[in-house]
Amino acid sequence: MIITVTPNPALDVSYRVAHVRPGTSHRVRSVHERAGGKGLNVSRVLHDQGLRTLVTAPVGGARGDAIRDDLTAAGIEHLLLPVPGPTRRTVAVVAEEDPSGEATLFNEPGNHLAEADWQRLRDLIGTRLPEASVLVCSGSLPPGCTVDSCAELVCDAHARSVPAIVDATGPALLAAAEAGADVVKPNAAELRETTGQHDPITGARHLRDRGAAAVIVSLGPDGLLASTEEGLWRAKPPHAVSGNPTGAGDAAVAALAAGILRREPWPERLRNAVAWSAAAAAAPVAGTLDHRVLGDITDRITVEPLAS
Amino acid sequence: MIITVTPNPALDVSYRVAHVRPGTSHRVRSVHERAGGKGLNVSRVLHDQGLRTLVTAPVGGARGDAIRDDLTAAGIEHLLLPVPGPTRRTVAVVAEEDPSGEATLFNEPGNHLAEADWQRLRDLIGTRLPEASVLVCSGSLPPGCTVDSCAELVCDAHARSVPAIVDATGPALLAAAEAGADVVKPNAAELRETTGQHDPITGARHLRDRGAAAVIVSLGPDGLLASTEEGLWRAKPPHAVSGNPTGAGDAAVAALAAGILRREPWPERLRNAVAWSAAAAAAPVAGTLDHRVLGDITDRITVEPLAS
Repeated sequence: MIITVTPNPALDVSYRVAHVRPGTSHRVRSVHERAGGKGLNVSRVLHDQGLRTLVTAPVGGARGDAIRDDLTAAGIEHLLLPVPGPTRRTVAVVAEEDPSGEATLFNEPGNHLAEADWQRLRDLIGTRLPEASVLVCSGSLPPGCTVDSCAELVCDAHARSVPAIVDATGPALLAAAEAGADVVKPNAAELRETTGQHDPITGARHLRDRGAAAVIVSLGPDGLLASTEEGLWRAKPPHAVSGNPTGAGDAAVAALAAGILRREPWPERLRNAVAWSAAAAAAPVAGTLDHRVLGDITDRITVEPLAS
Repeated sequence: MIITVTPNPALDVSYRVAHVRPGTSHRVRSVHERAGGKGLNVSRVLHDQGLRTLVTAPVGGARGDAIRDDLTAAGIEHLLLPVPGPTRRTVAVVAEEDPSGEATLFNEPGNHLAEADWQRLRDLIGTRLPEASVLVCSGSLPPGCTVDSCAELVCDAHARSVPAIVDATGPALLAAAEAGADVVKPNAAELRETTGQHDPITGARHLRDRGAAAVIVSLGPDGLLASTEEGLWRAKPPHAVSGNPTGAGDAAVAALAAGILRREPWPERLRNAVAWSAAAAAAPVAGTLDHRVLGDITDRITVEPLAS
């Protein structure tokens, strides 16, 4: 089983409007709500691919109930810790008559998570670690969490001999690398901001020097760069697939977790990570894959070793 | 007592961000939630001015509970009908580092209100009409309501000899005029869209010919035009006060309701409507007045009779 942790989940609200014009009033044509957050999206992709997964997260208020109901309806196993602060929202506004446009996103920061609640979440996750093959910690930390929070989960997992993947940024990413995370997956901009290195190979090396066993850098529609103990690779799709960038990153993490579970060699893991990522970018909402794109692209992805 | 009816209330969510840039991701700096809808705002202004008021509205779900809690906390009397569909949201995004910019608003349409629920709301309002001096029906109708809904409330009020004010637009405004509403208050754009007349005096005449006793046209920061059985007036502030247009219109309606209650002559009602409107435009959120502006402006408003 792959356990995902979403420290700062959200109820994702999506609005369809004609156009987005700052400073004006918009009639919302349709409203859709869905359980969201990066770890949840990873679990959705794993579930879609037939792999057993457990969502863990702190949730609160009526929006927390909505997240629970949505996961139950989707048939995704979950272990949610009730906390006092209500779960945050994200609002994604899609301009239907502006087909070239990306969605306009408003991400609430989330409510304060008390230290005691974080410890209770760790304990709860600990009760299921004996069943886990991989632990994934993904996404932002809510206010109140220390930058060591992801690193603490890496240590908890390693204490049970469970490999850990972390998708985070900034100090939380550095701390996870120092805790010896098995895989960290920043995108190129996050890697640059976190390490101060403009070259992704140098930035990845920096995180491996800190302690991360493998650093996978997502390059958006151009694929991935992997810096591992076994070597350096560049994985590329046959053509750029643009679309939902949040979903693409989460699908790559899902493939990397599945690769550990299945003990795949690195080139195979990277091929799947690029394929799932492209299939997620092509799908309308994060956590789902476009199966047509997946079938079409997988065998045409190139994975080349680079000289380190 | 002044009863307000808000057929399509909302939980107003406001976000503060740095800038609003379509097609990008925004970190929300702060989130504020508040019971909203035009009738509610009218009641807030009346309450602020020490007048007894009763909010009536259909509400549903957790957001309905939030509306009830917010009104209770504000000490505003309310009679809310629980309905199955959850209350809608509006989202107002304020760009803090773009001081010239107006808020960017996203208005959800609201859930379907069943005919039976509308009738139950009418019955509920009917139980309090014997105590009422004025009935105000304000704002959009939820999906499922017929265009005659406001007109039905005008008839219910008149059956109890209670004067009725309607702030609506389009077919609902026409129907309310035909039902003999004592005051209707479109803004200039709504009057034009509803009557097809570009000149506000002609448009107001049109609604009076349909049956409205008085038509008050809000002209934004330029004041009001009033077409009544007693004559035609133009009320102007000493200088334009720009700001929150939703709040300004609702404050004008509150002053018109208070004017009926206090049996003020038309020039006095119009003076207060312009003053409350300017004080509301200067306040940060709808339903509140800037008391400094109110004190400063009231005696400097001009009310001139026009030749009809």
